[in-house]
Amino acid sequence: MPMRIDPWGEAISRDYARLMEEFGISSFDDLADQVPDPSHLVRRKIIFGHRDFGRVLKAIEKGNSFVTMTGLMPSGRMHLGHKLVVDQLIWYQKHGADIFLCVADLEAHTTRKLTLEQTRKIAIEEYLVNFQALGLDLRKCNLYFQSQSDAVRNLAFTLGTKINYSMLKAIYGFGGTTSASHMFYPTIDISDILHPQLKEFGGPRPSVIPVGVDQDPHLRLARDIAARFKDDYKFVAPSSTYHRLMWGLDGGDKMSSSKPETAIFLTDTPKDAELKIKDAFTGGQPTASEQRELGGDPSRCVIYEMCVYHLMMDDTELLQMREECKAGKIICGECKKKALDLLKKFLSDHAKKRKEAVKVVEKLLK
Amino acid sequence: MPMRIDPWGEAISRDYARLMEEFGISSFDDLADQVPDPSHLVRRKIIFGHRDFGRVLKAIEKGNSFVTMTGLMPSGRMHLGHKLVVDQLIWYQKHGADIFLCVADLEAHTTRKLTLEQTRKIAIEEYLVNFQALGLDLRKCNLYFQSQSDAVRNLAFTLGTKINYSMLKAIYGFGGTTSASHMFYPTIDISDILHPQLKEFGGPRPSVIPVGVDQDPHLRLARDIAARFKDDYKFVAPSSTYHRLMWGLDGGDKMSSSKPETAIFLTDTPKDAELKIKDAFTGGQPTASEQRELGGDPSRCVIYEMCVYHLMMDDTELLQMREECKAGKIICGECKKKALDLLKKFLSDHAKKRKEAVKVVEKLLK
Repeated sequence: MPMRIDPWGEAISRDYARLMEEFGISSFDDLADQVPDPSHLVRRKIIFGHRDFGRVLKAIEKGNSFVTMTGLMPSGRMHLGHKLVVDQLIWYQKHGADIFLCVADLEAHTTRKLTLEQTRKIAIEEYLVNFQALGLDLRKCNLYFQSQSDAVRNLAFTLGTKINYSMLKAIYGFGGTTSASHMFYPTIDISDILHPQLKEFGGPRPSVIPVGVDQDPHLRLARDIAARFKDDYKFVAPSSTYHRLMWGLDGGDKMSSSKPETAIFLTDTPKDAELKIKDAFTGGQPTASEQRELGGDPSRCVIYEMCVYHLMMDDTELLQMREECKAGKIICGECKKKALDLLKKFLSDHAKKRKEAVKVVEKLLK
Repeated sequence: MPMRIDPWGEAISRDYARLMEEFGISSFDDLADQVPDPSHLVRRKIIFGHRDFGRVLKAIEKGNSFVTMTGLMPSGRMHLGHKLVVDQLIWYQKHGADIFLCVADLEAHTTRKLTLEQTRKIAIEEYLVNFQALGLDLRKCNLYFQSQSDAVRNLAFTLGTKINYSMLKAIYGFGGTTSASHMFYPTIDISDILHPQLKEFGGPRPSVIPVGVDQDPHLRLARDIAARFKDDYKFVAPSSTYHRLMWGLDGGDKMSSSKPETAIFLTDTPKDAELKIKDAFTGGQPTASEQRELGGDPSRCVIYEMCVYHLMMDDTELLQMREECKAGKIICGECKKKALDLLKKFLSDHAKKRKEAVKVVEKLLK
């Protein structure tokens, strides 16, 4: 379950707090003040935790080389939840990161029963074109397909000599029915994370992987394995940051392309968006009069959340919306209209930007 | 332990017989008569078992397409024990096989702690040049390096979805300390065996993998997995043949490059060979007079074995040597001299052929 969002609120939800304590993730509050030109994701505490992010900040500050690495699974449509990572990549690219972007086509191929041709098409149309249109310059990224990278595979087989079944069982709960392919994916993921530090990719240096808490097992394993191979490769332990995950529009679970009616896709039309927003779950009271009397609860509202994450970049305006809701000065219909106007504008602008982005991606991959 | 050899003898050693029965390997006797132009390895029952070899014979007979597949591990020097497989490849090439030859450099890299550059050098100098010099035309083979083949890796991840930990544990005895890399190698081996049947490599057709009994677990798994993916790929279950393994010169265990004093390497000089043969274990009696009185035992003699496998291609001459030994008409020194002369000639001829072979391999891999 994703955490309920309350930017500028005091409390990180108990679930996240427990996870952070259990796995030794530090609060991002410790470092937020030191982030130059902080994005709304930092200002609004959507990025709430980290491991060793200080060394990445130091690299940014000193203008030293550092890596930001992420992967994408080309198996469904890209929605606003996915956009969170792209926004971070764009920020890192602007601040000097060497961006590594892995298309996990092999994993999608075997786990989602798609052909590699299908995964390639999805990767391009649903992910890469959107990434480029959102503002990530893919031409300056190290973009690779898992099915084609000898370097990552070969490193995986080396790193995999020091990962054993007991470790995998403890971390991922693998057992008798776990397939051989599934058992090897964590090792490939570790290799994805560490390979930018190979000599031919730029050598040992700080790196940061922006993830949701659900991805932390990979990070713990990657840091463990980086230490075990320190003598061989001089790996710097990879850093990570942890961001909250977006709700689906029904407020029930995280946004997912497997529940298309509760997700806003980046290629949705304004009309699609209108129909979905109409049914979205809010933090409002059952009736308008109750709302005016008791006020709403923005911390439970997916419309407010969408403004926080994506639509309303002005902090003052956002805070005003929040306070007006809590004070019962506005009702849900008004907020929905405001959010929908912003969302429609975003989607139609994005559709235009995609046209240019398609050309860039085609040229890049031809 | 390799089986004691007794060509034209009645008995397959009890160990091999038990293995054959346990795992359902058929005796090669059933088919030997149908093999056209049989090599000395067939005539002398060095190839003693098979699975479904009949369909390969049928393809040869009808001039239909079929595959012979093998791998080499570039981690030590090539010795006469390795030559057994090459002799089979040469025979298959002559009889129309589409030969697939995998350099298992990745496996050597991770299990033997060699760099990929080192394994490449070993693969070329110790294996490929020798293969070419022995008479296998590598230019007509599908030769590939495991570290570079997207097709094999990608197929492995597909096949690996239907191989699970319980199967691997049962077949290979994997457990908690087995590394992630090691756990994935069988899946890659299965992919090596089956990928020649992918559409882009020639499609479904009979194939044969010549192996020692120790490799049978891979074959059983490959046949099982071929069946599980029959709907997707129309795989024909791979056939296999089983050959006896050569002794080391001390008669203690199979010939191995890890015991260099008991192995004849293909790049040994005649002088090296002389020193090693001098100390070789024979089936002779302690003294010459006992030998003349009681006769020797060629079935325990590594010198005789070397003649059977490699040095004496004339069956009549070989049988005569055997009978004279058993009858005490010759003593070990005489046999050693005869074998050494043949071996020296083989090694010096081979050294000459290597010079031409180096050029072919260099051109092929550049």
